[in-house]
Amino acid sequence: MERVYNFSPGPSALPLAVLEKAQKELVCYKNTGMSVMEMSHRSKMYLEIIQDAEKLLRELMSIPNNYKVLFIQGGASLQFSMVPLNLMKKGKADYICSGEFAKKAIQEAKRFGEINVVASSEDKVFSYIPEIDSSKFNKDADYFHITTNNTIYGTRFRTPPQTNGVPLVTDMSSSILSEEYNVSDYGIIYAGAQKNIGPAGLCIVIIREDLVTGTPNNVPVMMNYKTYVDNDSMYNTPPTYGIYMAKLGFEWLKDLGGVKAIQKLNEEKADYLYDFLDNSKLFRGTAVKEDRSMMNVTFVTGSEELDDKFVKEATKSGLENLKGHRSVGGMRASIYNAMDISGVKALVEFMKKFETENK
Amino acid sequence: MERVYNFSPGPSALPLAVLEKAQKELVCYKNTGMSVMEMSHRSKMYLEIIQDAEKLLRELMSIPNNYKVLFIQGGASLQFSMVPLNLMKKGKADYICSGEFAKKAIQEAKRFGEINVVASSEDKVFSYIPEIDSSKFNKDADYFHITTNNTIYGTRFRTPPQTNGVPLVTDMSSSILSEEYNVSDYGIIYAGAQKNIGPAGLCIVIIREDLVTGTPNNVPVMMNYKTYVDNDSMYNTPPTYGIYMAKLGFEWLKDLGGVKAIQKLNEEKADYLYDFLDNSKLFRGTAVKEDRSMMNVTFVTGSEELDDKFVKEATKSGLENLKGHRSVGGMRASIYNAMDISGVKALVEFMKKFETENK
Repeated sequence: MERVYNFSPGPSALPLAVLEKAQKELVCYKNTGMSVMEMSHRSKMYLEIIQDAEKLLRELMSIPNNYKVLFIQGGASLQFSMVPLNLMKKGKADYICSGEFAKKAIQEAKRFGEINVVASSEDKVFSYIPEIDSSKFNKDADYFHITTNNTIYGTRFRTPPQTNGVPLVTDMSSSILSEEYNVSDYGIIYAGAQKNIGPAGLCIVIIREDLVTGTPNNVPVMMNYKTYVDNDSMYNTPPTYGIYMAKLGFEWLKDLGGVKAIQKLNEEKADYLYDFLDNSKLFRGTAVKEDRSMMNVTFVTGSEELDDKFVKEATKSGLENLKGHRSVGGMRASIYNAMDISGVKALVEFMKKFETENK
Repeated sequence: MERVYNFSPGPSALPLAVLEKAQKELVCYKNTGMSVMEMSHRSKMYLEIIQDAEKLLRELMSIPNNYKVLFIQGGASLQFSMVPLNLMKKGKADYICSGEFAKKAIQEAKRFGEINVVASSEDKVFSYIPEIDSSKFNKDADYFHITTNNTIYGTRFRTPPQTNGVPLVTDMSSSILSEEYNVSDYGIIYAGAQKNIGPAGLCIVIIREDLVTGTPNNVPVMMNYKTYVDNDSMYNTPPTYGIYMAKLGFEWLKDLGGVKAIQKLNEEKADYLYDFLDNSKLFRGTAVKEDRSMMNVTFVTGSEELDDKFVKEATKSGLENLKGHRSVGGMRASIYNAMDISGVKALVEFMKKFETENK
């Protein structure tokens, strides 16, 4: 069976080499006589896996020693609550509303405190990153929240806002490990695994040590960062297999040359696709040029009918999951780390052909 | 590589047939051209998997129509908070303290309301199920909580307590699907997957419809049962691969003849091991006979030194993870659904040999 090119926004394509390694080791991992899925999370053999995963991520992202790496369940959506529940001391936070998930994060945080939306791009269907005016910042905010990459509308922050000592928290689900980030710019980075890390069911949280303190006693134990810090993410059974898959992914990325190397490849892929879009007479990108995402490329033909036809015919040609998010329509090609340039080239070839056939 | 007999209490052994099927399908699932891990959770191909999983579980446990089946992350430990956060309306609940996890559930519930511990077996290291005196029940309780099977100390409730209309909630993590239960006896059944269902990172919640109501607005969206009910467990990305593995496990169990059939096999396994213990001159079971677990068999030699020696030598013979929980010592053989009678026989053979050699 031939593999398709999978442009799904998440869960999304994983590197073939990672899948093949996992397949080989699935029934018996190394000389242990059992599957990773069957290992006690407290066994020596499993501890090696989770510790390696953390070590590799620290290396790949140059995570400073005063940051903790936590393995948590519940996806980024659980972080939408955990961030305010743990960080709100004064009960105030600043948010940038740059997309659907940013909006959900804001909605959720409002349960727990006073939220100041510093800037929003909702007026133009989130097709740009809003201008940020620091005079609108709340100096008393417990934290400042952004969504680094906007999966649905295909935009991204190129540089994080300067928050003058207020801890910057970011949802980095759809761009973590895709380009170099300076971890020290952030108080918390969190990311659901199912885009650039591994299978769904794991969320990585990178948190500056001094922020893990003073969480009120009425916060559920599983929502308190301290529970994870104090127990090396093993207060209860972590998602052991997901962490193993993440480890394989980190190894793959390291072998490839690390984040600097993948960033170069990602730039090539995105440039290739955007260049085509900018010169096409049928297709056009929907995000403002200077804010374009490197991971999620959104585009339309201008006709809903043609969009539908395109998605259907692409699927038949082994180019899958190109339909835009149900809230926005059009097309979206998610070209995460695991998508090879050959997939992007195949997509562009197909788009050229489609353009010729549908003049 | 030969597989070992894995007596781990969780994550624990999975059926070899399930692992082999997963291995075969890992890189490409059927004719989809992708791994299950790479599928969008909203794709038709994945919806089939999650819907089949639910259908199979409903069939296996004869779950009535007025119960919802939810797929949640965070393990049973997250349920320790979700149950009180969702069910407490008057702020009161009754709990039975029959083991370490029951104790944790109580500890956690105390953050959210007034907890009445109706009975406890902590006085004798949780080696029995306490007598339950219904005059101690709080008639105003929002719910009544038990832990059906005690993984650490090896005891179990043979019949659930009669709670006179107060919803009975149970942590069934280590005995779900091991014997027939009448779902209608319970308001909520929850179970971490990593013992009798599939890999860690998935928790199954079976909840009576009328209990999904009136959760206060300050409860995090991911901790509100209604979020899962209203979105078919897809408010955000569920642990897709874990659910797929669970589905394979349910299929395996159905092929085997369902819960009635596995119960018979489990009874045989447990009887075989307990019979040996009752006749041994070296080993003895630690749980009171009438409350013995069918899943977790706890035993000691009476000498810590011999216990250590036993565990070490057993490991060398391919009988792994027999060490008792760190809080109690001794030995524990977890013989969940996936443990074949051949494993139990191999263990008993080894115990006989050890007994002869260490008279």
